[in-house]
Amino acid sequence: MPVKSPVLVDLKFTPEAIAAALKTAFADRGSINLADPANKGADLSQVDYALLWKPEADLFQRAPNLKVIFSGGAGVDSMLNIPGLPDIPIVRFVDRSLTVRMTEWVVLQCLMHLRDVFGHFRHQRKRVWGHLPAPEAREVTVGVMGLGILGLDAAAKLKVMGFNVIGWSRQKKHIDGMETFDASELDAFLARTDILVGLLPLTPETTGLYNGSLFSRLRRGGALGKPVFINAGRGKSQVQADIVSAIETGVLGGASLDVFDVEPLPMDDPLWGLENVVITPHDAAVSEEHSLMRHIEEQIARFERGEPLQYLVDRSRGY
Amino acid sequence: MPVKSPVLVDLKFTPEAIAAALKTAFADRGSINLADPANKGADLSQVDYALLWKPEADLFQRAPNLKVIFSGGAGVDSMLNIPGLPDIPIVRFVDRSLTVRMTEWVVLQCLMHLRDVFGHFRHQRKRVWGHLPAPEAREVTVGVMGLGILGLDAAAKLKVMGFNVIGWSRQKKHIDGMETFDASELDAFLARTDILVGLLPLTPETTGLYNGSLFSRLRRGGALGKPVFINAGRGKSQVQADIVSAIETGVLGGASLDVFDVEPLPMDDPLWGLENVVITPHDAAVSEEHSLMRHIEEQIARFERGEPLQYLVDRSRGY
Ligand SMILES: NC(=O)c1ccc[n+]([C@@H]2O[C@H](COP(=O)([O-])OP(=O)(O)OC[C@H]3O[C@@H](n4cnc5c(N)ncnc54)[C@H](OP(=O)(O)O)[C@@H]3O)[C@@H](O)[C@H]2O)c1
Ligand SMILES: NC(=O)c1ccc[n+]([C@@H]2O[C@H](COP(=O)([O-])OP(=O)(O)OC[C@H]3O[C@@H](n4cnc5c(N)ncnc54)[C@H](OP(=O)(O)O)[C@@H]3O)[C@@H](O)[C@H]2O)c1
Repeated sequence: MPVKSPVLVDLKFTPEAIAAALKTAFADRGSINLADPANKGADLSQVDYALLWKPEADLFQRAPNLKVIFSGGAGVDSMLNIPGLPDIPIVRFVDRSLTVRMTEWVVLQCLMHLRDVFGHFRHQRKRVWGHLPAPEAREVTVGVMGLGILGLDAAAKLKVMGFNVIGWSRQKKHIDGMETFDASELDAFLARTDILVGLLPLTPETTGLYNGSLFSRLRRGGALGKPVFINAGRGKSQVQADIVSAIETGVLGGASLDVFDVEPLPMDDPLWGLENVVITPHDAAVSEEHSLMRHIEEQIARFERGEPLQYLVDRSRGY
Repeated sequence: MPVKSPVLVDLKFTPEAIAAALKTAFADRGSINLADPANKGADLSQVDYALLWKPEADLFQRAPNLKVIFSGGAGVDSMLNIPGLPDIPIVRFVDRSLTVRMTEWVVLQCLMHLRDVFGHFRHQRKRVWGHLPAPEAREVTVGVMGLGILGLDAAAKLKVMGFNVIGWSRQKKHIDGMETFDASELDAFLARTDILVGLLPLTPETTGLYNGSLFSRLRRGGALGKPVFINAGRGKSQVQADIVSAIETGVLGGASLDVFDVEPLPMDDPLWGLENVVITPHDAAVSEEHSLMRHIEEQIARFERGEPLQYLVDRSRGY
């Protein structure tokens, strides 16, 4: 039996967590963790598989015989922009836990806006016992942009919570009990949406998509009064100055943002201080290191048995 | 056909909303709204049905021939304490919308504690981009006390959101995919619970039940670190001084309270100012007036067709 090549690992995540997960991962073949100084000059020429997140610039020169690249994250926009990226299959990270956590975050944000947690906290701080209008979830339409792994799970659980849910994706989807729209039907979709949930990948088409013009096409006068914008896809899909002015001028009634144009969000950014706006530090759904390693072990095993890889990135689409 | 007697209405809710709902309700028999000054001295001796919430003290003397009492709320603790309450059937308010809204509130509170909304808001106020530990819902056990109409709906939707859910009720329930405990198994139930959700009626047995001793028997060292207490049943089931000291001494890591011993919660109450504590003004699930009238129309129709009334209160149990 030929010796199996170790998995090359170059992940710009928390180094301790990666090192800990690698102790037990890839038992049959080992790994070469570039975060370990001992591997500084290691010979990578015979390596078949690489697990990467923001890898070193010379990586593909040092490892010219890769067969498959695994992305350390669910989104591959940064990966696809790497100069010299070889023309081999790229598998992205898809994981039950990541999906479930994203949906926790999305449902939490939708319920916070539905039940006006902001108004309640303002009352609580002033020790005011004051009733606030509270529509029921079924009176509010959540429009989910992106009906992939994450969007579909969020949509299904938002429906269980009682929201009216509609969805938008590049290609028309047929989903029981949910009205869907394709890319060409954006205006009709927006006109029906009270809470917009963005779960899109970053591609040339989705760059700057969430802008003032889009916000102004959302439904006005729904049960929440003003529309709400929620984004957990990628920050560069949003025009942040437009979010600020939409909140300030009342085009939007609130927002929840987990992703930003520049991360960490700079301290002087006006988004931090706006009313009815939730800022979370790109932690809606973190990649859990052990799950990540297990996912890659599974995909390598499939590949070596001659089965098709799952969750392949389509470079022409950009995701 | 004999003339149908109008429905007697004495509801200490928002008078305008009641008056509006009564305009179209009970079309075949009409109503006598005691909030209307014109009905001050009205003859109530022939009235069959009364819809009540905190009625006038002399009401049962003025209406001695009632056949059924309808409670304006889901809880009947205040009703059962009225002196001179006649020994006739009491129907409580059960409604899809009320149930759904309560579950919205419960799921929102559980997710807020799971995802540390409080820590995130503290960071946001200081413009700090800081990651916070975030267990996944499945690592956290929500123990629901009270598996009635409200508890069962909340438990089912908490499960969909991924939480591990267990339940406690007077009599053992058998529910697919959920471990349940009866009244005698309280300690075993508490020892497994990370987030306690109270959805119990107020009865002699449940008065003062949520006290320091109970909080100290909740699981410690679960995925959230410290247990959390959530109550949307009735305020007199909780010992508020014990909640304050449990939060201050770290026996509880947080709380969400919709109900209080005295409502409105007095301005000088220390609960208002505690960290990781959510105060809402008994608005987790408000009775919607139109739904209330429809529910009573339905029950009167059943009764007059000779069918059994639904949602009857059992006075010996107290709920
Ligand atoms: N904040 C976080 O913590 C976090 C964590 C994980 C992932 N993410 C982000 O979430 C994104 C989505 O993840 P996923 O796993 O759900 O991706 P996915 O399975 O690839 O789904 C992407 C969805 O977006 C739709 N879409 C893409 N481009 C579109 C366009 N131009 N117009 C209309 N629809 C378009 C796709 O439409 P089709 O169905 O027609 O292809 C698909 O429904 C990732 O790319 C990543 O950036 C964020
Ligand atoms: N905050 C709000 O806005 C709001 C709104 C509506 C209602 N509520 C409150 O919520 C309460 C629950 O409503 P519901 O419609 O779910 O009531 P329900 O259908 O009557 O259910 C009550 C549940 O509590 C259990 N229970 C009662 N006494 C118990 C005891 N001593 N030990 C153990 N379990 C006990 C019952 O056990 P069994 O199943 O064995 O009988 C049952 O499972 C109402 O009584 C009301 O006070 C609050």
